[in-house]
Amino acid sequence: KVVLNSVRNLALLLSFNGSKYHGWQRQKNAVTVEETLSNAIYKITGEQASIIGCSRTDAGVHALGYVCNFKSNTKIPTEKLPLALNTALPNDIRTLKCKRVADDFHSRFCAVSKTYIYKVYSDVISNPLLKDFVYHFPYELNYSKMERATLPFIGTHDFSAFMSSGSSQVTTVREVIDFHVSKENNHFNFEITANAFLYNMVRIIIGTVLYVGIGKIQLQDIEQIIACRDRKRSGITAGPEGLYLSSVKYNE
Amino acid sequence: KVVLNSVRNLALLLSFNGSKYHGWQRQKNAVTVEETLSNAIYKITGEQASIIGCSRTDAGVHALGYVCNFKSNTKIPTEKLPLALNTALPNDIRTLKCKRVADDFHSRFCAVSKTYIYKVYSDVISNPLLKDFVYHFPYELNYSKMERATLPFIGTHDFSAFMSSGSSQVTTVREVIDFHVSKENNHFNFEITANAFLYNMVRIIIGTVLYVGIGKIQLQDIEQIIACRDRKRSGITAGPEGLYLSSVKYNE
Repeated sequence: KVVLNSVRNLALLLSFNGSKYHGWQRQKNAVTVEETLSNAIYKITGEQASIIGCSRTDAGVHALGYVCNFKSNTKIPTEKLPLALNTALPNDIRTLKCKRVADDFHSRFCAVSKTYIYKVYSDVISNPLLKDFVYHFPYELNYSKMERATLPFIGTHDFSAFMSSGSSQVTTVREVIDFHVSKENNHFNFEITANAFLYNMVRIIIGTVLYVGIGKIQLQDIEQIIACRDRKRSGITAGPEGLYLSSVKYNE
Repeated sequence: KVVLNSVRNLALLLSFNGSKYHGWQRQKNAVTVEETLSNAIYKITGEQASIIGCSRTDAGVHALGYVCNFKSNTKIPTEKLPLALNTALPNDIRTLKCKRVADDFHSRFCAVSKTYIYKVYSDVISNPLLKDFVYHFPYELNYSKMERATLPFIGTHDFSAFMSSGSSQVTTVREVIDFHVSKENNHFNFEITANAFLYNMVRIIIGTVLYVGIGKIQLQDIEQIIACRDRKRSGITAGPEGLYLSSVKYNE
């Protein structure tokens, strides 16, 4: 006798404005994206879903292409779920896509790489319209030095010098696959791809490159700062408002 | 005996994110930009300034170049006021410039023309990162029809059909000096300049052009809709979040 399994493992592609959220992961006494999504899923399916997110994000961090997955018995067709969920979600979180995935798909463990974008606005006066969407850095930046400062980060390194304490990792070795910066007037856009990231790794790497941009850290010292694995030698932790989880890559 | 008058009439150029404000003008039980600026002026000068704004703006409307003026006895040099004010202002309001102007300069009465920008995002799914900064219009827009729909508005007309009730105006005749639209992917940017605007005039004109874009109003009917002076025949009042006071022009 064949029993048809009606449980589907569903992956969602989300975009969210992180300004009002205390990050992705469910917390006591603070509104998170996970909890808000969970409430929306409950509202349209009646199910208390156990949602797996592709990564924790900090308060104020945004997402253009966040991936999460959950198992569901809902009879709502997969292709109709984005619209249904969006009616139940606040307008600072949108479901862009929904796809049925293999039962063993896990949005965090199966991720092959992630790409983050980091936006910096460099001017004496901050831009009030972008206050939640760019990191305001009021000092003049040397663009060509910053371009060169991205290069030593590419490759497989122990990134201990670029990790905030409070995280427990089996290994602090990560592979940065790509890292570059582009510029338009006073706007600097960084894009960094790695197999995985340590806690606050992007924000500390950006803070370090910005310090190269103002001459507070020398370009030729970057390799040594990576090698020394000492958080005290790297730059500031740049603010969460400039950080966007851009995309997550999975093997087909 | 010469008495030096130390009262200066100071004009400020402001940019603000209107999302959290109930418009420019002071109100009971609601936080406005005027009140917030007034508190900042008090904090740095100790003076209760009487601020004249170039226009009222609605809740949620933004400004890239808002002009206001007030008389002050402060000893803080004019060129240092922007920085001083910005330390006392929340980061969704910034003073871009301060200039001493003639004693009889009045930021509203002396304005020769104003330019507004209106941003529309047209896609099925709204953009959560732009929710406070563009008007989301989920229907497909015919760009070339909208381009042509802007033309009949240019010139001197009685714009009664494009005014919300509740405003008392001596005359409802205004001169639209320029009006055009540009497009980049799903983003539509309108720019409109007039000698002055009626209450909600930009938002109703945009709502009417959007209705032309989806075929709900015919291109050839626009002239008649202007001529009939009937608010019932024009389009919707497009949302405040897409509206930006871009610049105000004064005679030198």
